[in-house]
Amino acid sequence: MEDNDESPVTDPEIFAGHEGGKLAVAATRPISRPRDLSVAYTPGVAKVSRAIAEDASLAQRYTWADRLVVVVSDGTAVLGLGDIGASASLPVMEGKSVLFKTFGGLDSIPLVLDTTDVDEIVETLVRLRPSFGAVNLEDISAPRCFELEDKLKEALDCPVMHDDQHGTAIVTLAALRGANLVLGKDIADQRVVVSGAGAAGVACAKILREAGIGDVTVLDSKGIVSRGRAGLNPVKEQLAETTNAAGLTGGLAEALRGADVFLGLSGATIDESLLGTMADDAIVFALSNPDPEVHPAVAARYASIVATGRSDFPNQINNVLAFPGVFRGALDAGARAITENMKLAAADAIVAVAQDDLGPDRIVPSPLDPRVAPEVAAAVAKAAVEDGVAG
Amino acid sequence: MEDNDESPVTDPEIFAGHEGGKLAVAATRPISRPRDLSVAYTPGVAKVSRAIAEDASLAQRYTWADRLVVVVSDGTAVLGLGDIGASASLPVMEGKSVLFKTFGGLDSIPLVLDTTDVDEIVETLVRLRPSFGAVNLEDISAPRCFELEDKLKEALDCPVMHDDQHGTAIVTLAALRGANLVLGKDIADQRVVVSGAGAAGVACAKILREAGIGDVTVLDSKGIVSRGRAGLNPVKEQLAETTNAAGLTGGLAEALRGADVFLGLSGATIDESLLGTMADDAIVFALSNPDPEVHPAVAARYASIVATGRSDFPNQINNVLAFPGVFRGALDAGARAITENMKLAAADAIVAVAQDDLGPDRIVPSPLDPRVAPEVAAAVAKAAVEDGVAG
Repeated sequence: MEDNDESPVTDPEIFAGHEGGKLAVAATRPISRPRDLSVAYTPGVAKVSRAIAEDASLAQRYTWADRLVVVVSDGTAVLGLGDIGASASLPVMEGKSVLFKTFGGLDSIPLVLDTTDVDEIVETLVRLRPSFGAVNLEDISAPRCFELEDKLKEALDCPVMHDDQHGTAIVTLAALRGANLVLGKDIADQRVVVSGAGAAGVACAKILREAGIGDVTVLDSKGIVSRGRAGLNPVKEQLAETTNAAGLTGGLAEALRGADVFLGLSGATIDESLLGTMADDAIVFALSNPDPEVHPAVAARYASIVATGRSDFPNQINNVLAFPGVFRGALDAGARAITENMKLAAADAIVAVAQDDLGPDRIVPSPLDPRVAPEVAAAVAKAAVEDGVAG
Repeated sequence: MEDNDESPVTDPEIFAGHEGGKLAVAATRPISRPRDLSVAYTPGVAKVSRAIAEDASLAQRYTWADRLVVVVSDGTAVLGLGDIGASASLPVMEGKSVLFKTFGGLDSIPLVLDTTDVDEIVETLVRLRPSFGAVNLEDISAPRCFELEDKLKEALDCPVMHDDQHGTAIVTLAALRGANLVLGKDIADQRVVVSGAGAAGVACAKILREAGIGDVTVLDSKGIVSRGRAGLNPVKEQLAETTNAAGLTGGLAEALRGADVFLGLSGATIDESLLGTMADDAIVFALSNPDPEVHPAVAARYASIVATGRSDFPNQINNVLAFPGVFRGALDAGARAITENMKLAAADAIVAVAQDDLGPDRIVPSPLDPRVAPEVAAAVAKAAVEDGVAG
């Protein structure tokens, strides 16, 4: 098989790649002599345990827990597959742990839960608190994911991040900055249409506003989220308050007319004629996986910059550009939380790496670019210090 | 440093051996090409998750969970250090996971809990059930450990074993068989005195009776556990019913007179003059760590066979001879539980390995003997099938 083999991956290849699972535990030092056993286990380990009992801060130095990321899911919103349960979500969580190790150099284990009760999930992680150093929430359905993340951040004195929200938001912001650098435009003047008000849509709308985007219009399955629309849940009510400055109502047709950016996060296909109503030099990010809202070749007829979530098209907007570096930076700084500034710093760092080689088909670095995670980590750690959450 | 360096391990050597923790997570396949990402993560992983959603049994094949051992502690009875808490117990649990990997070839992670409530621990592990394949309980105080193990075995359809109880019991039985083979004696005729009615003492008394030992007398801090003694907790009441056939009362002096075996599991020192009252060809196992109940050189004046838990004396009775093979065998067989016969089979397998090279100073194999775990695993798997608990 060649290094740049671009033929589609086959089912046998995929299943073979998951046989026996994708993770293994290794000892950092071999046990081959009686002396190794005396150091790592009895009687030696008693001295280390006693030292930690006397000074709790030594656990950071003499155990793996302080830098261990737990990847937590209840299996309620797995990829595009929906609520398929904890066991079926595990291959995704193992994959996430592999990426934490590969790109962030962080040890990580999946913890999948046989409960979907938000308070029970919080309670479980509070009880396990001495076992880990950070929590990556994954594939948890909206709007439960918002409540869960809020409660966990309140309950735990360590970095907690729901990657489907904030990983996506960070990389999307970075890609949008990259696209505007290519087009020579200012994001402050732009109107972005976000299709989808789930975990990713809500978080993207938030970070885009924080980053100074001119206006954001969000749509859910019923149309534009606007003030006064009946039946909005609390999350969408807040969204209606903070987005849609133009006060639009209606559907995608009304939202897209004259818009600068389409951000697809809903899985719903979009009629290509609507793209023709967007502003000049339009930007289309069709991020649904595996099927983008519009094929990039079609989108390119109407837009100057097109991106998807797929590895087989240019401009792949993939969370792996963010989460390994974000957690690495947070843990390097001993951060007790992940702040909005840390996320914005992560996006800036991704843009900085992309800037070396920017182009219409290179608005973000490759997901495999080894420069990204260290740059993101450094920027995030610096922001943690600035925000006063570093250890 | 030489391979057989027998100088005492130093504090700097011990702490250096724990720096950063003793465990790491590794990916079973590298992620170096875009194709690797497509297989291990999106879009490939979706096919594996969907397959498991349709057929739950495929999680065994395509995730690591089915063969993952969680080493669980609440830090209430850590080594001889007592209730030092979850964080301080973690170096021991990491060490245990290292030994599972080294000797059993099993992946294992520590989960330490910030609760000592038995029902909360059970509830936590029930919620995490899809994340693991077996539970090794560790360093949990008596009598809570008995209730916790019973409830967990009831609640979980997978192997559960409290190693401080059953690992110790298995290796002690193996050592006693080995000692009797050396002495040419029959264990059915012997009276064993167990000093200590905690986790290990209770489990040893149980397995020794199951193995056909003539009589067992157990002592706690107040003396011989006997029928009608006031203030016995339920566990000790049951012990009083099933041990001490001779109906002895009193303390160690009354118990040891004419006894064949002294099994020290209490940490209390024993006056050497009492050893002189034992039967001819006495056997003394002084297993408290790091300080045996009696120095083996002293015990040797009165006993034909002497063993300790320490690596720096002959006949080291160490749980590592049992737990890696027990769990490996149980998981190889797809066992839903660990039965009494599986434990007895493990002890027999250890004896079988020792038999190749038996002697007064070699009643059990070395803890590093690579033959032990595979032999134990094979015997345990076979017993699981015979007991009808195999998958």
